Amino acid sequence: MSFNTFGHLFRVTTFGESHGPAIGCVVDGCPPRIPLTEADIQPYLDKRRPGQSRFTTQRQEPDTIRILSGVFTDDETGIQVTTGTPLALLIDNVDQRSKDYSAIKDSYRPGHAGYAYDVKYGLHDYRGGGRASARETAMRVAAGAVARKIVPGLQVRAALIQIGPHEVDRSRWDWAEVENNPFFCPDAKAAAAWADYLDGVRKKGSSAGAIIEVVAEGVPPGLGAPVYAKLDGDIAGALMGINAVKGVEIGAGFAAAELSGEDNADEMRMGNDGQPRFLSNNAGGILGGISTGQPVVARFAVKPTSSILTPRRTVDRYGNETDVVTKGRHDPCVGIRAVPIGEAMVACVIADHYLRQRAQVGASPAWPFKKPSV
Amino acid sequence: MSFNTFGHLFRVTTFGESHGPAIGCVVDGCPPRIPLTEADIQPYLDKRRPGQSRFTTQRQEPDTIRILSGVFTDDETGIQVTTGTPLALLIDNVDQRSKDYSAIKDSYRPGHAGYAYDVKYGLHDYRGGGRASARETAMRVAAGAVARKIVPGLQVRAALIQIGPHEVDRSRWDWAEVENNPFFCPDAKAAAAWADYLDGVRKKGSSAGAIIEVVAEGVPPGLGAPVYAKLDGDIAGALMGINAVKGVEIGAGFAAAELSGEDNADEMRMGNDGQPRFLSNNAGGILGGISTGQPVVARFAVKPTSSILTPRRTVDRYGNETDVVTKGRHDPCVGIRAVPIGEAMVACVIADHYLRQRAQVGASPAWPFKKPSV
Amino acid sequence: MSFNTFGHLFRVTTFGESHGPAIGCVVDGCPPRIPLTEADIQPYLDKRRPGQSRFTTQRQEPDTIRILSGVFTDDETGIQVTTGTPLALLIDNVDQRSKDYSAIKDSYRPGHAGYAYDVKYGLHDYRGGGRASARETAMRVAAGAVARKIVPGLQVRAALIQIGPHEVDRSRWDWAEVENNPFFCPDAKAAAAWADYLDGVRKKGSSAGAIIEVVAEGVPPGLGAPVYAKLDGDIAGALMGINAVKGVEIGAGFAAAELSGEDNADEMRMGNDGQPRFLSNNAGGILGGISTGQPVVARFAVKPTSSILTPRRTVDRYGNETDVVTKGRHDPCVGIRAVPIGEAMVACVIADHYLRQRAQVGASPAWPFKKPSV
Amino acid sequence: MSFNTFGHLFRVTTFGESHGPAIGCVVDGCPPRIPLTEADIQPYLDKRRPGQSRFTTQRQEPDTIRILSGVFTDDETGIQVTTGTPLALLIDNVDQRSKDYSAIKDSYRPGHAGYAYDVKYGLHDYRGGGRASARETAMRVAAGAVARKIVPGLQVRAALIQIGPHEVDRSRWDWAEVENNPFFCPDAKAAAAWADYLDGVRKKGSSAGAIIEVVAEGVPPGLGAPVYAKLDGDIAGALMGINAVKGVEIGAGFAAAELSGEDNADEMRMGNDGQPRFLSNNAGGILGGISTGQPVVARFAVKPTSSILTPRRTVDRYGNETDVVTKGRHDPCVGIRAVPIGEAMVACVIADHYLRQRAQVGASPAWPFKKPSV
Repeated sequence: MSFNTFGHLFRVTTFGESHGPAIGCVVDGCPPRIPLTEADIQPYLDKRRPGQSRFTTQRQEPDTIRILSGVFTDDETGIQVTTGTPLALLIDNVDQRSKDYSAIKDSYRPGHAGYAYDVKYGLHDYRGGGRASARETAMRVAAGAVARKIVPGLQVRAALIQIGPHEVDRSRWDWAEVENNPFFCPDAKAAAAWADYLDGVRKKGSSAGAIIEVVAEGVPPGLGAPVYAKLDGDIAGALMGINAVKGVEIGAGFAAAELSGEDNADEMRMGNDGQPRFLSNNAGGILGGISTGQPVVARFAVKPTSSILTPRRTVDRYGNETDVVTKGRHDPCVGIRAVPIGEAMVACVIADHYLRQRAQVGASPAWPFKKPSV
Repeated sequence: MSFNTFGHLFRVTTFGESHGPAIGCVVDGCPPRIPLTEADIQPYLDKRRPGQSRFTTQRQEPDTIRILSGVFTDDETGIQVTTGTPLALLIDNVDQRSKDYSAIKDSYRPGHAGYAYDVKYGLHDYRGGGRASARETAMRVAAGAVARKIVPGLQVRAALIQIGPHEVDRSRWDWAEVENNPFFCPDAKAAAAWADYLDGVRKKGSSAGAIIEVVAEGVPPGLGAPVYAKLDGDIAGALMGINAVKGVEIGAGFAAAELSGEDNADEMRMGNDGQPRFLSNNAGGILGGISTGQPVVARFAVKPTSSILTPRRTVDRYGNETDVVTKGRHDPCVGIRAVPIGEAMVACVIADHYLRQRAQVGASPAWPFKKPSV
Repeated sequence: MSFNTFGHLFRVTTFGESHGPAIGCVVDGCPPRIPLTEADIQPYLDKRRPGQSRFTTQRQEPDTIRILSGVFTDDETGIQVTTGTPLALLIDNVDQRSKDYSAIKDSYRPGHAGYAYDVKYGLHDYRGGGRASARETAMRVAAGAVARKIVPGLQVRAALIQIGPHEVDRSRWDWAEVENNPFFCPDAKAAAAWADYLDGVRKKGSSAGAIIEVVAEGVPPGLGAPVYAKLDGDIAGALMGINAVKGVEIGAGFAAAELSGEDNADEMRMGNDGQPRFLSNNAGGILGGISTGQPVVARFAVKPTSSILTPRRTVDRYGNETDVVTKGRHDPCVGIRAVPIGEAMVACVIADHYLRQRAQVGASPAWPFKKPSV
Repeated sequence: MSFNTFGHLFRVTTFGESHGPAIGCVVDGCPPRIPLTEADIQPYLDKRRPGQSRFTTQRQEPDTIRILSGVFTDDETGIQVTTGTPLALLIDNVDQRSKDYSAIKDSYRPGHAGYAYDVKYGLHDYRGGGRASARETAMRVAAGAVARKIVPGLQVRAALIQIGPHEVDRSRWDWAEVENNPFFCPDAKAAAAWADYLDGVRKKGSSAGAIIEVVAEGVPPGLGAPVYAKLDGDIAGALMGINAVKGVEIGAGFAAAELSGEDNADEMRMGNDGQPRFLSNNAGGILGGISTGQPVVARFAVKPTSSILTPRRTVDRYGNETDVVTKGRHDPCVGIRAVPIGEAMVACVIADHYLRQRAQVGASPAWPFKKPSV
């Protein structure tokens, strides 16, 4: 990972600001001959798109993706496929609402990146957050849609498991439910309660944090490169790199600190498929930084957005103390739209490591091994 | 980060197995003319060294560091300094106790990386964990000692704040206390209680997890590169890449999910030094992936080691179900020795970003800015 | 350098095919607050643009550059400057002449990349050469225009010094002449002769090779990182990576093999500016991979294009022997348009190393050193 | 390539100075289960080793390689194989002859890197050239020996084809002859003449340049990644990065500039093996940056060493004009020992691209393609 490029072999470089003409990305390293059209990408963008319920920002962006390069319609099959050259993906910005920025142009919103950009670069693009805007994450979702096509059998799903202090009840977990409510919540009852709670937050002009869980199934065993490109290390870096994320866990996560060694270790038996069957998944599918074939489970915490209606004490860029308040449309819970983004980042990391494993090892070794005859 | 190399400009490449002749690393990208001798590195290794109390493994390794390259004694001053060429650091392995590996040679220890290595590479070095051994982390500590010398005014400290279910009392936090007990615990009273608790764990042949907090002070504002090399993203990746780590937080971390936007935002006033003064530090010193000048605060959770005396159900590499038990010396709480390692990883990330910021921006902009005259 | 990304800190990622909707690039790592508009880039593209004389391809492309991101108009000065975030540059393809590809769709043109792409990727985009088209080099020129703005005082110029067997006379070298003829030739007399020669080549439907010399003045001393990122190594890689290039030299180049050690070594005296004055420049401004402050001089050879009217023996993608002939517009000497491309690549390498040197060393050491008092 | 690391997936990081305790390298990314012992590496080092004839430096270095990590003796076969973790290779420096450096400590040798290091880093290790010494290249040769084992069927050979102005006669080329003379010369008659010529050079205390040709056979088609990691671009960068190299060519090289398009294009027929047969090899086995299956042919020019007995005008590091002369042992023609180094660099580049191709494409497409039925 380097500046605006993500990944080592499956490499995603994004660009664009909230209020520029467009945002986009270049996906490099994609294998050739993978069927790919805009229709493979658009559904994921539609999930992340703002303005779909009263619980997310009212900015209206169709987020229509265009593929500018890297595909070719195969003469024989008539199917559009990747060529192995860079995929350029572009989304035009549509709703850069012209507004009065005088309130925030010079004053920093507490918890927002404006001060940090100023002190780093000597300037910042205050229009809609500039490069620090969540709009950049649309390209992560687009890249994630490509990543999903690279690893055969991979399924990456995510769900919101907590808003503010309100958790889901895991005994009611139903993946199908995730598509049925505006929160990507796997627990229908919790979703109903969250609607009430978040209406209250929204009406106060306040904001709420959230926790998201990502589950990747069908991850081939053997992915992850010790010691500085561990699969969990790369997932943690990728998820912590999403806007507003403050914590990341794998498997049992922080709770593992309270377990005994006996309880934490995932015991093994042989499964009917001739592969090992783990009796628990505290490891979250990763041992020694390498995938084991169990589902990879990660969670991340999103802070409440700093765009709130209550005035906060702050300073301006000229060193004067002042107060600031954020007007206009905003997300009462940015964690909701982080669900498809988290999925995408995990998919990108797995695709990258899938290619890396294929590079170093070629075809993975067949396990179990044959016992040598003495 | 790539395979066994860590960092982009301050680059650390480590090598070596638990039971090979030596472990070592190459530190590339270090600025020239920095005074450096083994004496700058050894004290940090001594903190990490095993066998210093009954609460860590009894393996006896002096861990004596040698600098093989990259330094030169300046003719004029007679002081040994870095030359800007790669520093090679080497530690000979001394106590590779010859022992009988027949019990674990073929059977996987639940929670240990053996199965993952086998399914990735088709073989694994079972002697002391091979490359997955915590011995590799000695080189992280050595590299961290170099990193500390690169950033003027940087101070990185860490402390153990929880063992098993037992937390410190933050009202008793005293950094000086950290040097006074075998746990790097900032709370003398908690340390005493931990000794009893961990004696019990040790006698049962069990193991306990832990949580470590790292605090970096003197971090220049402006470090961290949006959007895929954020300072918090890189710290999360680095800490999650330490053996046995299952969770990472920055600032308020997972607790931020339960805060309101009003409570979470760190308000700003002007300090007496003409720089901003933040009224809280929920951000952990990082906004938008960029350091703000506040202390950078990170926490990470370490799982209990899988090396325990209680037999666990497992399979062997030939697909047979069996039981396994780990005999011999082991760490009842590997989290203790993770304290200097966590410090080192954070120091390396900061040094890397210090060089990156200098590359892109040169001298950092002077804040506050001068108000333009109209 | 990696796939479609060039550079380590000044990073250029290009995308696009000859006959797709657009070509573009992302320039990442650019310092902030550098004044930049399309007008800084367009003149260099205009030099490379096809269709400007009868000696280059008649494809008509205005090559109008658009900056999609990474700039912001400074509130105080009203000047558009870089923000430090990625610059996305885009050129729409206009003249993708619809034509009949049946002649070359299946049959490989000898000397062309079609076979290589097929055997690598299992398919290739035959329309105008796809990704292998020289159109990609437009983005190198655009990135080079940005690179030039990064290094204070840098001037990178290039000239064509040989077409086919016809060399310039160095005693007549006049940089001003380079702008006066369609060949970027510094020798007016040679340019006149080349016009006749190349008319003959063109009328025969043949093609000619060429040699280009790039001279970079104002290169700060100390750029280049031993041992695997030497300035000359990176320049060689960059120039050899231009389409159709078969050889690269620095300074005396291949002729150095015939010199004696006495004649080859560039002796040194002190200049009036207190810096060393070299009495010759066989080194081409680089010693040990590091710039010395002398002009950096590189040359590269471009082969005659494989697009010729004479039928050549070949095979098709199904393994049948056949003949092929290239119809339609083409460049009789692709080396001409390689002149601005060579300039751009050298500028990009120097900008990258300028940032790298600033990262590792900060302010360069002041030479000569002060003699220590004994 | 970055500072002291070479390669993207097959990554070699070297360290060490001429007069430090040791030189070494870390080879990362090597596939697992490749049989490897010191005996696979030592023969290549023995070819490069100094002091083997009167035509190379008389420094006596046994250059005995030790593998410190990354190998394991397979329990079943008893064969030592790579594990997939980093290989650390070490050579102790033995003959760091203690000598009087006062003559060159402060004065720059024209053509030598001392001035460049000083102006870059503010100091340089003058003992035997420090990091700029050719001793570093021993580790390239060692890494090259590992690279050769990665690509099945690869054979990389090199020969000296010119010393000073004296070329070989290609009609007498005999690879077997290369092992029979101290010059790696494929032409026995030329070798005899060179001995006389070089004796004269040596006795005068002068030095001679040279040209080396590297030929890689068995390179799988499809290696090389457009557009910034072309196989020829990476080879050019790698060869230009060898000490004292001033020029690099692929295939017809600079001579291609004088060929017509008709003569330069390598026509194709079908071979008896069902693969294409090229009727010439002006391309040097590479089209569009991608290997075609033909032998990859590269040449590079080595300048005469700057270590000569004739006094040269120079300056010292304090800005005084002076003369300098190099005493003691030296290579009259450093190009001789560059032969195994050039082989090694080409082998490393090919191994790196072999892994990259496997990552992106997996199993290469089977050519010729099957004609689709209409």
